[in-house]
Amino acid sequence: MEGWVMSVAEGAYQRVSKDRLREDITETGKFGEVVTEQGHGRTVLTGTEANRQAREYFIDRLEAAGLDVRVDAVGNIVGRWVPESADPTAPAIACGSHIDSVPEGGIFDGVLGVYSGLEAVRALQEAGIELDRPIEVVCFTEEEGARFSNGVLGSSVASDQRSVEEALELEDDDGVTLESALDDIGFRGSGRLDASEWDSWLELHVEQGERLQDAGAAVGIVSAITGTIRCSVEIQGEADHSGCTAMADRTDALTAASELVLEVESATKDVVAKNGETVVGTVGKLDVSPNAINVVPGRAELGIDIRDIQYGPMEEIVGRVQDCLSELEAERGVGTTFERPYDIAPSKMSDRCNAALQKAVSTIGASALDLHSGAGHDTMHIASVTDTGMLFAPSHGGFSHSPREWTDWDSCATATRVLAAGLADLAHD
Amino acid sequence: MEGWVMSVAEGAYQRVSKDRLREDITETGKFGEVVTEQGHGRTVLTGTEANRQAREYFIDRLEAAGLDVRVDAVGNIVGRWVPESADPTAPAIACGSHIDSVPEGGIFDGVLGVYSGLEAVRALQEAGIELDRPIEVVCFTEEEGARFSNGVLGSSVASDQRSVEEALELEDDDGVTLESALDDIGFRGSGRLDASEWDSWLELHVEQGERLQDAGAAVGIVSAITGTIRCSVEIQGEADHSGCTAMADRTDALTAASELVLEVESATKDVVAKNGETVVGTVGKLDVSPNAINVVPGRAELGIDIRDIQYGPMEEIVGRVQDCLSELEAERGVGTTFERPYDIAPSKMSDRCNAALQKAVSTIGASALDLHSGAGHDTMHIASVTDTGMLFAPSHGGFSHSPREWTDWDSCATATRVLAAGLADLAHD
Repeated sequence: MEGWVMSVAEGAYQRVSKDRLREDITETGKFGEVVTEQGHGRTVLTGTEANRQAREYFIDRLEAAGLDVRVDAVGNIVGRWVPESADPTAPAIACGSHIDSVPEGGIFDGVLGVYSGLEAVRALQEAGIELDRPIEVVCFTEEEGARFSNGVLGSSVASDQRSVEEALELEDDDGVTLESALDDIGFRGSGRLDASEWDSWLELHVEQGERLQDAGAAVGIVSAITGTIRCSVEIQGEADHSGCTAMADRTDALTAASELVLEVESATKDVVAKNGETVVGTVGKLDVSPNAINVVPGRAELGIDIRDIQYGPMEEIVGRVQDCLSELEAERGVGTTFERPYDIAPSKMSDRCNAALQKAVSTIGASALDLHSGAGHDTMHIASVTDTGMLFAPSHGGFSHSPREWTDWDSCATATRVLAAGLADLAHD
Repeated sequence: MEGWVMSVAEGAYQRVSKDRLREDITETGKFGEVVTEQGHGRTVLTGTEANRQAREYFIDRLEAAGLDVRVDAVGNIVGRWVPESADPTAPAIACGSHIDSVPEGGIFDGVLGVYSGLEAVRALQEAGIELDRPIEVVCFTEEEGARFSNGVLGSSVASDQRSVEEALELEDDDGVTLESALDDIGFRGSGRLDASEWDSWLELHVEQGERLQDAGAAVGIVSAITGTIRCSVEIQGEADHSGCTAMADRTDALTAASELVLEVESATKDVVAKNGETVVGTVGKLDVSPNAINVVPGRAELGIDIRDIQYGPMEEIVGRVQDCLSELEAERGVGTTFERPYDIAPSKMSDRCNAALQKAVSTIGASALDLHSGAGHDTMHIASVTDTGMLFAPSHGGFSHSPREWTDWDSCATATRVLAAGLADLAHD
């Protein structure tokens, strides 16, 4: 087995083409292109003209490599390659990511995962390696959640977390449904891509952090993707004239909110001290009302984002948030509301997939770092229905969701070689 | 003298008409009318159609009472009454306020001051009391600062704090100048109203607080108007992915801003403990950027409003703000900027004017409370060039700058009687 992996890895290593990969990624970067002084980005929201162009280009490239293409009812695209040596009825090994972006996002986020999958297939085809299972290259609909959802939309349907019907009824801010947006661009296919039918799944993604760069590692092998709990908090005080209301007579929503912001930070740091630095807690959003310099704030709305690779530490922070709200009500006389609209469990990558990636790394001779993913990815949904593994490529300066996002083409190619060898290993009985 | 005041007061007392005053205020409330479930408000921004209508109605009412009307170059309106007994060359006693409003403001704020002045003149005319000096009733342009300025615009020109030219060049958010806005409504007059020529000035205004209501007092006699220092602070952190950035690697602008918000509160409470409750400090405005739930805040902009009847306590709070910013830079690694774009000195009302108001109150037999004004008024500018006094009428529940603003018509009439007696006293040698 080790000898086989070695030969597969070398075959794939030799044939992965940096130029072909670069061409696919840069061509995709022209759809919804955003050119700034900081770099080259793109805006590709689900169901837009840029999204249609990026999807059609992807299908052209899949077909040019001889893959069979299908599109499911929520617009997930799958290219399927059945090697001559493979059993077409065997569960496939799948890989991929997404081609939508945040507004003014980067050109690598998602796109690298989709085209590294296709490039791995092309390299494996050219290397003529005998594989036992089909390989599928997948582009999920709306991973970013920039128009219809909170994100990871297509994979939520493929992993049966959400029904096709529920997904198609999702609306954007103008009341347009996902169904009609997909109809508009000709990408409402049929059936439901069922990820539970896959033998396993691999996703290559840019790191969106600096750990690989700092460590000088060529790739990262992801041990787990953090779960995320989001809390929506509203603090109700009393809006009053800033000049006419004595300090003792105020019910200031912003001073109360400030205590909560600092408590989230302090609770998270306490939990980090006990559980390690995978735990993060952030108040990223704070809206003050009426937000006028001469009015004591009457209302504050906060969005809190808590993540970890285990549930317990996240729940501990949520508990501290709720305790803090009770104290603010008692001590400052504010009213508070607490909601928890978003809750995704942490997901561990499978030992089998990670072993395949580790073997691929050592065979190719690349340096690798074990790390967790603090960002959510489609893989976290797929992990609930089949074995999954995830690879990271280094991000320059950690920039992401921005035109400053950059991963060197050599880094892209190296990570794709690891992916190809990992796929080949998993596709070999 | 006391006997004269008594007779004047009784004459005025008998002739002040609650109905006439109510009619003027409610008719003015129809221009830019805003009807809500909470009450009846109005939106009258400088240079709008509603402002034109309110101004023309005022001029009609001045002329109906036989006053001579002039409009200065920045739109300040003056109605002048020279009693037959008076020396027309003697410095006038002036009174008034403003008829512009904040967006969705109340119907009494400013309007009561203007029309109580006119009603006082009408009552004095009818009472046939012999006065030695002319009386002028004034409406200042843009007290609220809702379109072109930070407020008290017309009085800043009348008190020579700002030149006519500088005022006319002020622009609204769309780049329209005050000059062209006044031209549009036909209210760019000529010359400059010069408040330093007045013998003295009285302004009646709604309290915008609950002290009179709580004390059951009919009027408030203002000892001083607080000064205001406003600070603009920007805190620069680093926007990062909330999931991918460990707590130790963050430079969070919002946690830093939250410390500052709480320091403003705590510093002000410390100063209140030493100097009394006239001191107030407020962070009314906080803008977070990019303000997304999954991004560590990269920038926070705060607007701080500090007021007191003395400079020292305000400066002490400003000092604490600056110390806090230095600590935040040292301890949290944020960058900070500090500006102080608005600085108005506290102003004391004159002993002479307050004595006249006190006499008027006791003659009429009304109950009065000595208090300070935490809100800014045109009077604070006028106080820099002549003797001033200020009267408050009770506000129901303290609501102001809102359709919930309300002062009973009986309270309006009583305060107008005090104003009339005070004006008569000052206009009598």
